[in-house]
Amino acid sequence: MLLLIAIKTIRIWWILASLEIKNGLVITMDPARRILKGASIIVEDDRILNVIASSENSTEAPAADKVMDAAGMIVIPGLVDCHVHTVQTLFRGICDNLELLPWLQKYIYPMESAMDSEDVYTSSLAGYAEMIKSGTTTCADMQSVRHTDSAFEAAGKIGIRSLIAKSMMDQDIIPESLQEDTSTSIAESMKLYRKWHQAEDGRLRCMLGPRFLQGCSEKLLGEVAQISNQTGMSVHIHAAENSTEVKNDIEKYGKRTVEKLHDLGLVGAKSLLVHCVHLSDREIGLIAEENANVVHCPSSNLKLASGICPVPRLMQSQVNVTVGVDGAACNDNLDMFKDMKLASLVSKISGQPQVQVSSVSAMNILEMATVNGARALGMQDEIGSIEKGKKADLTILNMRNAETTPMLDVLNQIIYSTDGHAVKTVIIDGKIVMENRHLTTVDEDALVQKAQSRAEKIVEKAGVGKKS
Amino acid sequence: MLLLIAIKTIRIWWILASLEIKNGLVITMDPARRILKGASIIVEDDRILNVIASSENSTEAPAADKVMDAAGMIVIPGLVDCHVHTVQTLFRGICDNLELLPWLQKYIYPMESAMDSEDVYTSSLAGYAEMIKSGTTTCADMQSVRHTDSAFEAAGKIGIRSLIAKSMMDQDIIPESLQEDTSTSIAESMKLYRKWHQAEDGRLRCMLGPRFLQGCSEKLLGEVAQISNQTGMSVHIHAAENSTEVKNDIEKYGKRTVEKLHDLGLVGAKSLLVHCVHLSDREIGLIAEENANVVHCPSSNLKLASGICPVPRLMQSQVNVTVGVDGAACNDNLDMFKDMKLASLVSKISGQPQVQVSSVSAMNILEMATVNGARALGMQDEIGSIEKGKKADLTILNMRNAETTPMLDVLNQIIYSTDGHAVKTVIIDGKIVMENRHLTTVDEDALVQKAQSRAEKIVEKAGVGKKS
Repeated sequence: MLLLIAIKTIRIWWILASLEIKNGLVITMDPARRILKGASIIVEDDRILNVIASSENSTEAPAADKVMDAAGMIVIPGLVDCHVHTVQTLFRGICDNLELLPWLQKYIYPMESAMDSEDVYTSSLAGYAEMIKSGTTTCADMQSVRHTDSAFEAAGKIGIRSLIAKSMMDQDIIPESLQEDTSTSIAESMKLYRKWHQAEDGRLRCMLGPRFLQGCSEKLLGEVAQISNQTGMSVHIHAAENSTEVKNDIEKYGKRTVEKLHDLGLVGAKSLLVHCVHLSDREIGLIAEENANVVHCPSSNLKLASGICPVPRLMQSQVNVTVGVDGAACNDNLDMFKDMKLASLVSKISGQPQVQVSSVSAMNILEMATVNGARALGMQDEIGSIEKGKKADLTILNMRNAETTPMLDVLNQIIYSTDGHAVKTVIIDGKIVMENRHLTTVDEDALVQKAQSRAEKIVEKAGVGKKS
Repeated sequence: MLLLIAIKTIRIWWILASLEIKNGLVITMDPARRILKGASIIVEDDRILNVIASSENSTEAPAADKVMDAAGMIVIPGLVDCHVHTVQTLFRGICDNLELLPWLQKYIYPMESAMDSEDVYTSSLAGYAEMIKSGTTTCADMQSVRHTDSAFEAAGKIGIRSLIAKSMMDQDIIPESLQEDTSTSIAESMKLYRKWHQAEDGRLRCMLGPRFLQGCSEKLLGEVAQISNQTGMSVHIHAAENSTEVKNDIEKYGKRTVEKLHDLGLVGAKSLLVHCVHLSDREIGLIAEENANVVHCPSSNLKLASGICPVPRLMQSQVNVTVGVDGAACNDNLDMFKDMKLASLVSKISGQPQVQVSSVSAMNILEMATVNGARALGMQDEIGSIEKGKKADLTILNMRNAETTPMLDVLNQIIYSTDGHAVKTVIIDGKIVMENRHLTTVDEDALVQKAQSRAEKIVEKAGVGKKS
């Protein structure tokens, strides 16, 4: 009798199942870090209904609405990108060889100021398209000061899971065109929260985005901390990216950047501290004690000559380290695979006596881009691994190409040899948003054309000229 | 009358022309570094017959045998990779987190020892396939000690321009299976020279490959210098890659690595000094004075925790710096675009006080991978730029994708946003070896299968096990 009920339950699963991905090599990233050969993943609506270790066990069950054969393919959890500025996608390639502060003043602020809502929509959509094409299913996206509704609309349209923050800046060092007074900045953020938080069945969420310590008043930052406590919204903030920035913070406050943020209540489990290149031992201790999250953006940090985040030291202190691609204006790829490889490579730079060659493994890096990212966004029960009951956010890789052959160690291969072009199919919230390299929710050719003409218009309007 | 002769001459060009690539944006890398919009490149047999600044001027001329429309595409000189070990392609992903010397002892030497000639052929062919797919048309390939004929055969088959060196090692620190006595090492190299140098109409060439100072006797290195002078063959040698290696050289010879190589006559215009991570100011001076060539392999140097080649300082001293991908066992991509980006990024690492953020431009990096590479191989009159009379080695890029949009600065885009997947078509020695991502001279699927089974066999035979 019990057996009959069990069989019936299994059959009900199958009847409900809308998608089965079978025969793949599944990198689950579950607590046991199981790697399952020839497994089946059963998806019902937006959730993973089950992960069956061997596809063979599923052959007698009724088929799902759609069956995908992933034989020879690798299925990984959709990647979690903890720091991107899709509003800057249209700035790609505009400049080179500038450090953070002149780069912001000469290019980024003028260009963000020049954008209208359609520009923001197009730039965000182009960024999300690139991210989906390279296997990212969730991102923490820091937008500009205005037109943030357009970013939510773009994320809604293309189907990515996006946690979006409008930039908040109320200090005089920020150009007038992007400066708000404190109350407006708070009010605008709250308006976005009421309109968009948990929209699209929870696929869209709001974050608070005080851009960086220098750009924000203590009053603004204090209120942000308070609102975060009241609403549960996370805080997305750049911290200790550049040595001049840290020096300026010390001059102004008599404290280092992360120390000051800690005083303001912004170093905690709901904080995404982006970059963290310049940290004292005391600051690493504070981040660890408070369970705050660090976002490592290696490509951006190298391009802007900021330095290198001390990931091995952070890991030794049990800090939750994640990966971010940052914006196209300072990377210039929104491809997590490339930043995963670079994160691995820069962890081995000799001359940093605290770094040991064997301290960061391929598995550590994949954890940063999946389960650690999920935890940093407060979504560890929802995303980051392929487990029964979690959201169906899945990235399927085809690595049967000369450039990813042979396959001797699947994790090394994913971290070192693979890039976003190996991504064949992407599923977010149970929906197929890319299949066989074809985006299903937007017309990529039309988007590319529109992005080009909008970018040229922004360059002209901002008066930043082209570097010849 | 003169006009008539001129017209006739032009017509004869056209009748002979076998391939016209029209309407592309051509990055010539000629001495004026011209970038020509909508240009035509006329190819006859293995040579560039002409570069016509505007395709419109060619419309009335008779068509070439084949016309390629490169509208919206970018044509660059085929990339020149100055250091690769295609013999190690089948070792991709085998290990991680080891420094140079244990990496060689534990994995590389045992695996090279385990290979038969068919393994070497397959590994080299797989490496060349990956390189062509990512836009490389010429490489300097350091093979293992034995079965080097198979590498020449693979290069002959697939159509790449390859300058191949057999490894030469006669010292006791090298495992017996790869150690030769001095005279055998020289004799084997000369046999290859007589059989393969200038084969396939000059597409294949021989180099001398004393692997590194520690692996070679002074006698061997002295004879190599002499043979290089007599035959004109270049010398391909690892130098000053790892700090332990340099320390060992100082202990043995009382001199730093490059100083000792200089004493032996191996620092000169015909030398490819690979890595050069650990150089004194005096050594940089010696390299500059002797017009020797440095090969920068940034990905490999990071992965093996070797450090970073001081490229900005070398450039200040007018040293000819080039780029190499190194082998799949320490990179793990044979994609020059990825190492070009990384070369640019690591040149900006702060904390190196001698490095200025603005010291290396995108153009500098593209020069390293084209004209500098050509010069390093003694082929500056033959390859490295798109100019009348040079070999027709061309790489055509399609950058109309989300990940390479917008195009605001074509050089920044090529160096920072592009990778080998943007390569659409590759022409080497006037022959189309890849068209629309399809390799024309080998069956990629069959090659991938064979590479996988051969790799597994080597792992087993070498007893190096798989890292789980």
